[in-house]
Amino acid sequence: MDLLERIEAGLYMALSHSAAQGCPPKLAGALRYAVFPGGARIRPRLCLGVALACGDRNPRAATAAATAVELLHCASLVHDDMPCFDDAAQRRGKPTVHVAFGEEIALLAGDGLIVAAFETLARETLQAPALTAPLVVAIAQAVGSPQGLVAGQAWESEARIPLASYHRAKTASLFTGAVSAGALAAGGQPADWMGLGEALGSAYQAADDLYDALGENGAMGKPVGQDLRHGKPNVVAAMGVDGALRHLRDLIETAAASVPDCPGAEPMRAMIRKEAMRLMPQKVMEGVA
Amino acid sequence: MDLLERIEAGLYMALSHSAAQGCPPKLAGALRYAVFPGGARIRPRLCLGVALACGDRNPRAATAAATAVELLHCASLVHDDMPCFDDAAQRRGKPTVHVAFGEEIALLAGDGLIVAAFETLARETLQAPALTAPLVVAIAQAVGSPQGLVAGQAWESEARIPLASYHRAKTASLFTGAVSAGALAAGGQPADWMGLGEALGSAYQAADDLYDALGENGAMGKPVGQDLRHGKPNVVAAMGVDGALRHLRDLIETAAASVPDCPGAEPMRAMIRKEAMRLMPQKVMEGVA
Repeated sequence: MDLLERIEAGLYMALSHSAAQGCPPKLAGALRYAVFPGGARIRPRLCLGVALACGDRNPRAATAAATAVELLHCASLVHDDMPCFDDAAQRRGKPTVHVAFGEEIALLAGDGLIVAAFETLARETLQAPALTAPLVVAIAQAVGSPQGLVAGQAWESEARIPLASYHRAKTASLFTGAVSAGALAAGGQPADWMGLGEALGSAYQAADDLYDALGENGAMGKPVGQDLRHGKPNVVAAMGVDGALRHLRDLIETAAASVPDCPGAEPMRAMIRKEAMRLMPQKVMEGVA
Repeated sequence: MDLLERIEAGLYMALSHSAAQGCPPKLAGALRYAVFPGGARIRPRLCLGVALACGDRNPRAATAAATAVELLHCASLVHDDMPCFDDAAQRRGKPTVHVAFGEEIALLAGDGLIVAAFETLARETLQAPALTAPLVVAIAQAVGSPQGLVAGQAWESEARIPLASYHRAKTASLFTGAVSAGALAAGGQPADWMGLGEALGSAYQAADDLYDALGENGAMGKPVGQDLRHGKPNVVAAMGVDGALRHLRDLIETAAASVPDCPGAEPMRAMIRKEAMRLMPQKVMEGVA
């Protein structure tokens, strides 16, 4: 089974519990709608990629970690799209959850996906109890407060937004959480992989801001110009397009160089180079910018 | 330390992590505001009460379980009070979180409290790894879907609401989760305690509906008539006031009778009798109804 098949199977299994018979039908529909069909599944592929590079000693725990990371990412998209935040009508080429199911079901589906993430981690590590608490802590820190996803989003409500803390919490934290969890699940050392997680998280943020500024409604699947319209801190606003592009290339170099020596280092570096190409805006690749 | 002191200390510790330095200030404020000062802390007291009755073999895990249960209860109150649900302006005698901090911070504070609950469970059981996964699963099932708190709330968006499933999910599930977690943390058998959790959950629901119908803005701390106004399924609407009162008394009898034989059974039964008095509407106690 390749990475993506493991991830989809993990997500399918998680939803078969959370949206099982007995679940209120609209909620069950919204939970599935928020997760399938997915985007690029970048974070869970990174998580599983690190687990493989570390020897994938406990495949079930690694798949659970990747699944939890993606469920939490989906939850954050559902809540971020709601009227009190981005008020986005489209996501991944279809109406957002609150547009399709109503605000109250969107709020609950996000909550349900957060709970499902931790339930999945625990259920799938019942036979490997030494892994449960470290995985839950690593992933909770990546998505909660004071420095995870929730905190990143909350910086947008402050009068003064520290750009570095904001981006680290809002974007990089789930990338570092994904690499930490992948390493932990395979018996590796999370600390060896933090540089990779941070570099990829920052690269993703720079690419996202470039897409927003350059007017490409591409890999990120959200409307163009949304961040600038909402006055959000943005790498392009801070560095200009050329500066942001240089920054993105530097970060990708850093990411590839930061893969530690391990049995699966070479395939991992190849995966990062391939991902990097996906992150570059099409216009840049065609020499427009 | 008595039960309430252990619970407040556990909550204080959990918030000292989630609202630590580095947290966006409004989010940190909202997290604390949502948890302190608390209500009656009924669910975590029940959780710790069961742990004590079972011998309280791992006090740290029991306190963590009680803390997680209360953090999740607080999260559900924050989200339930939001405009797309109850649109409530007051809770526990002060403005609701979204009124005091804005909708976006309320949404994030709820999310952050859910994450903090699971992080607390994991962090406090790092030294007792056999407990982590069972506790996370028990509590996640109580609050998630298909049959926990989130599902209970989601029934309100369906055209046809099955009253029993709705109340079991919306109210009783966190009571059964609290007793299960208390038993697990102390090495007891959760199954022995489910009858107690279900009876108390149903009693609490009946009392809540009676308060709503009788116009007492008391122990529950939410505006009177809100459920009836919102057309929510309600025990009083289904059984009448007298029927609901008989139902409440029966449930309290059932709860006291369902405490299994164990070292701490007698103090537990005394606690239930004391709690029951608190649940009875004042007007009933004064012979008005």
